[in-house]
Amino acid sequence: MPLSRRAFLLSTASLAVSSVPGVWAWPAATPDLVRVNAARLRQHIEKLSEFGRPPGGTFADGVTRVGYSDADLAGRGYVVRLMKAAGLEPRFDAAANIIGRRAGRDAASKPIVFGSHVDSVPSGGNFDGPLGTLAAIEVAHTLSEHGIVTAHPLEVVAWTNEEGVAYGNGLCGSRAAADELVAGELDQVWNGVRKADAIRKLGGDPDHITDARRAPGSIHAYLELHVEQGGVLDRAGIPIGIVEGIVAIDRYECVVRGTANHAGTTPMPDRRDALLAASRLVQAVNEIVTGEPGRQVGTVGRLEVTPNAPNVVPGLVRLTVELRDLSAEKIARLAGLVRARAGQIAAATRTTIELTPSSHHEAALAAPAVREAVAKSADDLGIAYASLPSGAGHDAQMLARIGPMGMIFVPSIGGVSHSPRERTSWEDCTRGADVLLGSILGTDRMSMSAASPVS
Amino acid sequence: MPLSRRAFLLSTASLAVSSVPGVWAWPAATPDLVRVNAARLRQHIEKLSEFGRPPGGTFADGVTRVGYSDADLAGRGYVVRLMKAAGLEPRFDAAANIIGRRAGRDAASKPIVFGSHVDSVPSGGNFDGPLGTLAAIEVAHTLSEHGIVTAHPLEVVAWTNEEGVAYGNGLCGSRAAADELVAGELDQVWNGVRKADAIRKLGGDPDHITDARRAPGSIHAYLELHVEQGGVLDRAGIPIGIVEGIVAIDRYECVVRGTANHAGTTPMPDRRDALLAASRLVQAVNEIVTGEPGRQVGTVGRLEVTPNAPNVVPGLVRLTVELRDLSAEKIARLAGLVRARAGQIAAATRTTIELTPSSHHEAALAAPAVREAVAKSADDLGIAYASLPSGAGHDAQMLARIGPMGMIFVPSIGGVSHSPRERTSWEDCTRGADVLLGSILGTDRMSMSAASPVS
Repeated sequence: MPLSRRAFLLSTASLAVSSVPGVWAWPAATPDLVRVNAARLRQHIEKLSEFGRPPGGTFADGVTRVGYSDADLAGRGYVVRLMKAAGLEPRFDAAANIIGRRAGRDAASKPIVFGSHVDSVPSGGNFDGPLGTLAAIEVAHTLSEHGIVTAHPLEVVAWTNEEGVAYGNGLCGSRAAADELVAGELDQVWNGVRKADAIRKLGGDPDHITDARRAPGSIHAYLELHVEQGGVLDRAGIPIGIVEGIVAIDRYECVVRGTANHAGTTPMPDRRDALLAASRLVQAVNEIVTGEPGRQVGTVGRLEVTPNAPNVVPGLVRLTVELRDLSAEKIARLAGLVRARAGQIAAATRTTIELTPSSHHEAALAAPAVREAVAKSADDLGIAYASLPSGAGHDAQMLARIGPMGMIFVPSIGGVSHSPRERTSWEDCTRGADVLLGSILGTDRMSMSAASPVS
Repeated sequence: MPLSRRAFLLSTASLAVSSVPGVWAWPAATPDLVRVNAARLRQHIEKLSEFGRPPGGTFADGVTRVGYSDADLAGRGYVVRLMKAAGLEPRFDAAANIIGRRAGRDAASKPIVFGSHVDSVPSGGNFDGPLGTLAAIEVAHTLSEHGIVTAHPLEVVAWTNEEGVAYGNGLCGSRAAADELVAGELDQVWNGVRKADAIRKLGGDPDHITDARRAPGSIHAYLELHVEQGGVLDRAGIPIGIVEGIVAIDRYECVVRGTANHAGTTPMPDRRDALLAASRLVQAVNEIVTGEPGRQVGTVGRLEVTPNAPNVVPGLVRLTVELRDLSAEKIARLAGLVRARAGQIAAATRTTIELTPSSHHEAALAAPAVREAVAKSADDLGIAYASLPSGAGHDAQMLARIGPMGMIFVPSIGGVSHSPRERTSWEDCTRGADVLLGSILGTDRMSMSAASPVS
């Protein structure tokens, strides 16, 4: 790609660092562009919502389609039928990922992989996962209808158990592909069922789980369309987000120890109140994270008090500090500031505060070439876009370990997700699918550098 | 009593408002004072500790003798035997309070009632309740041995279910005496047992529960010896506390509502974080309560976060604010300050904060005449004392509605209570029992004003 264009894209990214993301709208789109069937895509999203719908409910009541559940099994059956109707040849890999392949002109070339997931959180919405999966099938269907054959083979994928409600760890199918399963993971038990048996239930082959691995460098590109799950695009009125990458996430388990004491008989100066100390820490995290420019976020979402009785000065508080940013260095530095403040708070409140790193997720950067293909597709369609990071995790972060990755976001109305109230306008769903289609065709024409995979 | 002496006692109270409680120690005690049998009292406390002791444990392992439990029933049986051995005539009233009566010289005069309770919290100590109960029996035993007959009849009482672990509301026996049971209370179910049946198990007569009532003005005085359950006496090295009264307690249920949101996809400026707001409120309560002189205490002991997940910005926090002081007016004023700060915090964090009064316990002031009798007793014994409020609730607060009330505190080592580590030195136990004995004799000689009951 011309250097000037790359520089332009990078300026988009840095512009989006401010609270006013950059917006581009090109004049009328080229009339002969291929476009998806918007009505069919909507019909498929509406039909899939019936698998796991609350009894007596409607589309608006959301869905509970937890990975490996009967609803998940039934919904995946529907996906297999749609793939066949779209001219794909679906199969289950060893991790029960559904992979619908479509041959390319060059059988020896690496596949372009694209898709998402269809499992949901309990009382979740009908767009987080389904949009990307069904839009991918719709793209393949549209290509078939137009008799378009790509150079690279295409593989439409519905990844297994992205949300990780069952067994408490998600991205299961994509982690199996990236060789990132945890030791002993298949022996985990949830609701009385071994994970291996759950995978078998969906059509996988846990006894040969390593067959699901895909070697680094073995795919031409990975693309995923997804709802933003935040409110940036919706608030800015921008229909397409080009994902710069998926943020790094660091978590710290924090234990604040004071002395539990009678709330009536312990004078104020004699207290060592763990909740008072924890409250100061919650504020410190907020002040530190908002104390410098950037899009980093920091959250204390979990906090538990012991003994948690109205008449007892709290002796123990456990809480989790979570920090996210595209820059792992930045959140490590912020954690250092939090740790220093924790020391000051402990001294001032005569408590002890331990901060222990409990998990670290690497950032996964999108490949510049794939981002450019997405931008070009949106340009061709005359659709405005902006660059932004993904604060949430996605299967794409695992695929970034295998090949060049890109993600397309569409607006979540009001930023709501993981809720029955999760919505994306049908127009934006269509725009997202059209941009995905153009991105696949654009990526198909690109030659990727061997150095593309980024972690 | 001479006005000058009353004024002197009041100055004791106001001195104790400062952090340096007033201390008086008189020279050598009168040699012919009656004293309890220290070894026997200790033996009884040690023996009672066996009822509800953890299997294989020792005295140091504390006790679990929850009201109405089999351990409570067995411990009360031991108390009945001790009462008989002390020359008392024990009976159960309708609320299963054990009342051991000893005739006075004047059968028509009002009784002096004294005692405490023997039930405990789970994993509690061996002094909170047992000391006051067994010391009261010891006082009666000592009087018998010395052939001393008081003018007023004496009634040694072990009150039913003071701690309120079972059924969640304590002071059960004393509330029945003060006609303060709640409508429907006997129909409450805990561990599958109706409260009426639990009372019947202990020997009460729930079908005639109102027989347990004692009319206001029907007792000459009520006295209770108890461990402080706080660290004021222990830290000051003072063996006897004369209780000024039992504090008023106001509780407020507080609901902080923000918006639950994805902790990765919700930029910091867009958050309405209920835990951030609640944390500021926890600090505000502390600042307001410690912001003016006095012995008031304020606590946020309970705080619950929803949904309480590391990756979700908290949408809802529920917490309890508790304020205590002898002055109900002061804690009402402090609550007003907390409410004003809550409004500011809600505005600054774009949350809503509701503060709803959930319970109000009146202060129960000790009767000056009874306080004077206690002071005189300590003076006669040459034991130092200080005045202080009781931050914890006691059966005495109910008895204050019936007649002149007084309480004697002895030090809790390290202020520890409601714990197996709860301790009072045997010397201080003896001092407390001796002061109780002297106080009974002193009160017996006093004529109480008809206006004495205070609430």
